[in-house]
Amino acid sequence: MASTAWFTITPPSFYSKPTTLNRPFFTIRCNAHNPPKTQQDPLAVYSSVKAFAPATVANLGPGFDFLGCAVDGIGDTVSVKVDPDVHPGEIFISDISGQSPNIHKLSKNPLWNCAGIAAIEAMKMLGIRSVGLSLSLEKGLPLGSGLGSSAASAAAAAVAVNEIFGKRLSVDDLVLACLKSEEKVSGYHADNVAPSIMGGFVLISNYEPLELVRLKFPPEKELYFVLVTPEFEAPTKKMRAALPLEIGMPHHVWNCSQAGALVAGVLQGDLFMLGKALSSDKIVEPKRAPLIPGMDAVKKAAIEAGAYGCTISGAGPTAVAVTDNEEKGRLIGEQMVRAFQKDGNLKASANVKQLDRLGARLLSGIRAN
Amino acid sequence: MASTAWFTITPPSFYSKPTTLNRPFFTIRCNAHNPPKTQQDPLAVYSSVKAFAPATVANLGPGFDFLGCAVDGIGDTVSVKVDPDVHPGEIFISDISGQSPNIHKLSKNPLWNCAGIAAIEAMKMLGIRSVGLSLSLEKGLPLGSGLGSSAASAAAAAVAVNEIFGKRLSVDDLVLACLKSEEKVSGYHADNVAPSIMGGFVLISNYEPLELVRLKFPPEKELYFVLVTPEFEAPTKKMRAALPLEIGMPHHVWNCSQAGALVAGVLQGDLFMLGKALSSDKIVEPKRAPLIPGMDAVKKAAIEAGAYGCTISGAGPTAVAVTDNEEKGRLIGEQMVRAFQKDGNLKASANVKQLDRLGARLLSGIRAN
Repeated sequence: MASTAWFTITPPSFYSKPTTLNRPFFTIRCNAHNPPKTQQDPLAVYSSVKAFAPATVANLGPGFDFLGCAVDGIGDTVSVKVDPDVHPGEIFISDISGQSPNIHKLSKNPLWNCAGIAAIEAMKMLGIRSVGLSLSLEKGLPLGSGLGSSAASAAAAAVAVNEIFGKRLSVDDLVLACLKSEEKVSGYHADNVAPSIMGGFVLISNYEPLELVRLKFPPEKELYFVLVTPEFEAPTKKMRAALPLEIGMPHHVWNCSQAGALVAGVLQGDLFMLGKALSSDKIVEPKRAPLIPGMDAVKKAAIEAGAYGCTISGAGPTAVAVTDNEEKGRLIGEQMVRAFQKDGNLKASANVKQLDRLGARLLSGIRAN
Repeated sequence: MASTAWFTITPPSFYSKPTTLNRPFFTIRCNAHNPPKTQQDPLAVYSSVKAFAPATVANLGPGFDFLGCAVDGIGDTVSVKVDPDVHPGEIFISDISGQSPNIHKLSKNPLWNCAGIAAIEAMKMLGIRSVGLSLSLEKGLPLGSGLGSSAASAAAAAVAVNEIFGKRLSVDDLVLACLKSEEKVSGYHADNVAPSIMGGFVLISNYEPLELVRLKFPPEKELYFVLVTPEFEAPTKKMRAALPLEIGMPHHVWNCSQAGALVAGVLQGDLFMLGKALSSDKIVEPKRAPLIPGMDAVKKAAIEAGAYGCTISGAGPTAVAVTDNEEKGRLIGEQMVRAFQKDGNLKASANVKQLDRLGARLLSGIRAN
């Protein structure tokens, strides 16, 4: 179906409606015996693809709910293939794999799976009605750790679907597709999905309409994240419930100023400013940190070990510190792990990862005939 | 006195306390008969100076209370001279001039005058105890218009005093000197004094200790402010009282994100982003605008006339719009003046001014002998 003679590469909005049959000159047109009733599906460019989307750190201190960044080298991978056994326009999740201990919690029902929801949404946006897709998800990220696990699944899936059909969706479309998934699992926030798709730091300045501001960290500078994840399930509901409903004016002004300093730190590649701002949240972190055993001590340990700044990643329980050097990052990580053990009585593991500047991407693909 | 043989250029903190008289070897030291009890004053490099400090726009939309910028070509001028008739270590205000209709409200008592307070503070910081200064103030700015009139007086005075004694104070010192004045007249906020002294955009990220972030607007780009001041006294107390004490989380997150976008707009020279963020405040402007007759219509008129953004300057009543071209600025200003007349029944005047990138500066000086 997708390869019908009616396929056109003209973008949907410029597609001319076919002339109606009762007009005399129509008979001379090719395929006039079978004009499409609506726009045709885009052709599948690949028969199968594999896409990767990176982990993300959202709720960056005073950047709560509107600023996030992508982390290189860890993330989720989604493989998608055109599958004649799947009902046209639908998604079938064939496999979910990964090391996360609670991976069994993930549903294979595409309507209840982040990758599934984002893939379906991307298919809808592309107008895919002629082929069905099967999808397999490799979870590289632990679930519920504060590293944007659901966003990475969604981003990898949306990008995979988009790649199969020739990259017709814009970055904004991809983020919107993933937002459908985020809305279902954690709320309508783009501060994980946007950086997972776009890479680097992304500020969400509006939702209606969606406005994404790419904040370019200078390419010549290095930025490492020390991600320390304890063996502890951060109670998501409790983490949300801990947020204050009302904020006093002095704290509001303080956090706004720190948000500004954070953005300036990123754009100017000033790690000192960036780290200080990251550590400065007076509204969300003070409410959430006490819910993660040892978090205050972990932050202190990170700073004492030379980190520029430290805060909770996402809604936790991962702690994130920033530094400019991988080796220093490892030493900082050791101290943070030790603090989780000592003050929180929690076993934790550290990862030192660079800023991801690419975002979700195609890893491989097999061209369609 | 200032030229006593005891004068030393050693900075205060490194000054060695003189050896006490009862120690035998002391007698061989020069000037040992009259050792200073404390550190000596720095020498006056000029006998008189004239300094200028620019107007400023603070409370930049979501930058409320922490972000301001300087405006070229309008400001206050302070002349200071070493005056043997003035008691050493003190300030005498000899003259206050200017066109502002309420200029008579300004006190000549230096303890109750912004320029006087800042000058005294700068003298204290420099340790001036041997000479007295007389000061005259030319108010180029209207009082209470939202253009940082008090800050400009303080900044010009502090810079003038600093110049007379050889520029020994740092930028931070100068801002702190001016903060003493601001504290007395309008509150401990540096978002006017910092840009008036430093020029450009300045973000205040901390007060204890003072931390100022210079946000460099790209030098190759142009930025014009359309400043429209109605004949209306914004009731300062009412303007402060209008501020909400508590802010709901959604509005807090919104304004924080806009503050971030504003900073990004400034640093990237993206006037579209800057203007949009400037116009986006959901917390302060909606409470204050209704207190300035016609303000909502003025903002609308500015945007319709092509301004990138518009908000209240400081605590008002001046409205500030931004654009990239002087001629466009004049047309925008005309529409804003018209809207003040039509919707607020207020006569208003417009000024189109560029971003000031220099800050307070020496205009002229007569060298000391």
